[in-house]
Amino acid sequence: MNRSSATDRNRDPINERDAAAYIATITRELAALAEGAGMEVLKYLLEMARDEAQAIALEEKKRRPS
Amino acid sequence: MNRSSATDRNRDPINERDAAAYIATITRELAALAEGAGMEVLKYLLEMARDEAQAIALEEKKRRPS
Repeated sequence: MNRSSATDRNRDPINERDAAAYIATITRELAALAEGAGMEVLKYLLEMARDEAQAIALEEKKRRPS
Repeated sequence: MNRSSATDRNRDPINERDAAAYIATITRELAALAEGAGMEVLKYLLEMARDEAQAIALEEKKRRPS
């Protein structure tokens, strides 16, 4: 959960949020692909990544309402 | 993306291998993106998915040499 390092003071939260949202979108599609091909473990791993990415995207949103 | 259901006995291993290789490629890129944004946990989860996808791709190759 080390989403921001202690030494990086110039990180743009918008970029992180956008990156997380993008990753969530792509991993959701990849999970569907994995499921369609019967790769259940891979689907599960991708869903875990999607959940983490989604959590980051939403958390960043909460920090910056509208 | 639902190329074969759990009950589909005609699943094409080539499709599974290709899907796994594709997922491995994309998750590798997403992991780099996550790393660049300082999302270490997400990077780790994506690397786990990449490793699983890569293993499937290689395993399928072993089953079907050349």
